[in-house]
Amino acid sequence: MNILDIISKKRDKKELTKEEIEYFVKEYTKGTITDYQASALIMAIYINGMNERETTDLSIAMAYSGDVLDLSKLGENIVDKHSTGGVGDKVSIILLPIIASLGIPVAKMSGRGLGFTGGTVDKLESIPGYRTNIPINDFIENVKKIGISMIGQTLNLAPADKKIYSLRDTIACVDSIPLIASSIMSKKIAGGANKIVLDVTVGKGAFMKTQEEAQKLAELMTKIGNLAGIEVVCIFTPMNEPLGMAVGNSLEVKEAINFLKGFMPKDLKDVVFELGANIIKLADKGQDLEKNKDMIIENIINGKAYDKLLQMVQNQGGDISYINDTSKFENAQFIIPVKSKTNGIIKDLDAEEVGKLACILGAGRIRKEDEIDKNAGIILNKKTGDYVKENEVLAYLHTNKEDIIEYAKSKVLEIWKI
Amino acid sequence: MNILDIISKKRDKKELTKEEIEYFVKEYTKGTITDYQASALIMAIYINGMNERETTDLSIAMAYSGDVLDLSKLGENIVDKHSTGGVGDKVSIILLPIIASLGIPVAKMSGRGLGFTGGTVDKLESIPGYRTNIPINDFIENVKKIGISMIGQTLNLAPADKKIYSLRDTIACVDSIPLIASSIMSKKIAGGANKIVLDVTVGKGAFMKTQEEAQKLAELMTKIGNLAGIEVVCIFTPMNEPLGMAVGNSLEVKEAINFLKGFMPKDLKDVVFELGANIIKLADKGQDLEKNKDMIIENIINGKAYDKLLQMVQNQGGDISYINDTSKFENAQFIIPVKSKTNGIIKDLDAEEVGKLACILGAGRIRKEDEIDKNAGIILNKKTGDYVKENEVLAYLHTNKEDIIEYAKSKVLEIWKI
Repeated sequence: MNILDIISKKRDKKELTKEEIEYFVKEYTKGTITDYQASALIMAIYINGMNERETTDLSIAMAYSGDVLDLSKLGENIVDKHSTGGVGDKVSIILLPIIASLGIPVAKMSGRGLGFTGGTVDKLESIPGYRTNIPINDFIENVKKIGISMIGQTLNLAPADKKIYSLRDTIACVDSIPLIASSIMSKKIAGGANKIVLDVTVGKGAFMKTQEEAQKLAELMTKIGNLAGIEVVCIFTPMNEPLGMAVGNSLEVKEAINFLKGFMPKDLKDVVFELGANIIKLADKGQDLEKNKDMIIENIINGKAYDKLLQMVQNQGGDISYINDTSKFENAQFIIPVKSKTNGIIKDLDAEEVGKLACILGAGRIRKEDEIDKNAGIILNKKTGDYVKENEVLAYLHTNKEDIIEYAKSKVLEIWKI
Repeated sequence: MNILDIISKKRDKKELTKEEIEYFVKEYTKGTITDYQASALIMAIYINGMNERETTDLSIAMAYSGDVLDLSKLGENIVDKHSTGGVGDKVSIILLPIIASLGIPVAKMSGRGLGFTGGTVDKLESIPGYRTNIPINDFIENVKKIGISMIGQTLNLAPADKKIYSLRDTIACVDSIPLIASSIMSKKIAGGANKIVLDVTVGKGAFMKTQEEAQKLAELMTKIGNLAGIEVVCIFTPMNEPLGMAVGNSLEVKEAINFLKGFMPKDLKDVVFELGANIIKLADKGQDLEKNKDMIIENIINGKAYDKLLQMVQNQGGDISYINDTSKFENAQFIIPVKSKTNGIIKDLDAEEVGKLACILGAGRIRKEDEIDKNAGIILNKKTGDYVKENEVLAYLHTNKEDIIEYAKSKVLEIWKI
């Protein structure tokens, strides 16, 4: 087998065999296939496509290019949750303690943020003391002991995907449905769950701009999952404006904590409840989605979900006094209210633009190696559909970078379209 | 302008502007565009194609990525000749002295061989003393003085093409008609002629396997030439079996010398006369092709073409006693006749296979940096259509590598299909 034959086949729109896909993934991970050869093959895949069988084989080959987690000791139904990315997405930090409080084991590895979307690990690390980097055995033990653990990717999960993902970014091959699907599914397969709820975000702030594309991606991921022996349920979440009111690491953690205390912004609540109801169903704890939602609200009201969060944070070394009193979280040096210049209704608030503005304020990374400012971000005071009067606050900017304040203020007036 | 936008456009089957093509060629030559980005773009071009305008712009941009020769001092009609490659192709060494003997200036830069096809420069260098690497001014002066000079590529002609060409080889993007056409035409534009005869080889031993493909390539190169202000005439030459009887550097030079002394194998004669008649026409020295062929035969019979070869060799520092007496050329250590095992008619003799066998004997390069053995090669004693009796010689193998003789003999019996 050689890479030239494999490239030629896909170049000529032919189907690649399982063996050819495995050979490519293995040799590219090792480095015997060069970046420029991988690049030619990926472009050929982008243009000529891959069928479901090829996409599944690619997902599995990438999953097995590194460590594959075995979660079978934790029970029969191991449910994972994944979102295709959004701005202000603190759903995992809210939803997973709720799920654990219902007796469903939660063993969750999350990623860091890159570009305009945030990452759950960065958010959790804004809780003083919280350790996201614990040995894998401790991770499993934590789940056994208290039913939940949320950490970073300490294992070498799907290294082939990492390599291919960063190459795609530099050769204009990001927005290909088979490549996105296999990237996500490779990480999920390596992650060890046998049931997965996928939150497919749709809209301006998501990879999938239309419902039709999102539908295609969802169907493909469902089929890959099934072919790989994983049950998959997809939920579609609009991602035109940010989710909830906070964007930025400690700001979002505070919003998540407050959610479990009963302060639930409508859009965030809809997503949390919809995903949660499906996870409960997948875990065989309730077949009726509406009843499952009742179980969720019950555990928020009776404080069980909040207690589970406290328990998890303590168990990971975090300081729970911050959870009990969110005013203890350090604030950024500058908190700047930005006021509207006119009266009117907010007709558009682009999630991607808000995410980028949060980056500028210090909350995100442009490159992987960048440091983030945990306390920077944006609190949205008005969202799409809200009526705003002249001099009313549109948003509060939180930042430690004095020099960009004026620029950031002008951006708010551009992004909040009245 | 940035490379991601350019890649995206061609990926989506859109037309690239002249400025985009120039940007790519310039930045890739400099190295600011990486190999893997170039690779993605080339694959997109391979699959989605380029129109004539784009192909012309690519040819011109690659031509101007390095030195561009100015031959206008040599006259109004500067004719160049190019072949798309073959086995046993010693046409330039025969034809160009004929052309020069008819008063048409010949300023010819040739390449070295790579893979199964030979290169004119390697062949000329098998004449003791012949210098292919002379300063460009001496080259021009030689043409002014005696009407002909044949050298190697001493100038930095079309470096972008060199880089793209070797990349294509490693990513299965060689056999694309727009890419082949722009590669050839970039070198021709940089070479400085304003009239070009292209020998498009067709068959098993050529890049173009069918007449239809060859026709397409020829039409495209003609159009590129015209758009770039160059008059182009294409001749189609069958390249199923090797041209003439000799394959290998000094062996081919001897055949070329003997041709000008009147020993003309039929297939070689056809190609030389057809190309020659067209060059004479392009140079405005005769409009009737048949009459032009008469001029060629006349200058072979009266010895003027041979004298021009002698003059050229002497002028480049070569030892003309070898031309006058070709038996002076050193022979390989082993000359092995390979005899037929049966009676019958040769029904197939694959040029590419013969070329590869000559490589094994030492006559060619596998990699650019390989040394070649000037005296190694093959003399064909029987060609397609010939009747052969048991024990009659099919071919003579010339080599200095004793250890591969038995293998090479068995290959002859495979390649000469009876």
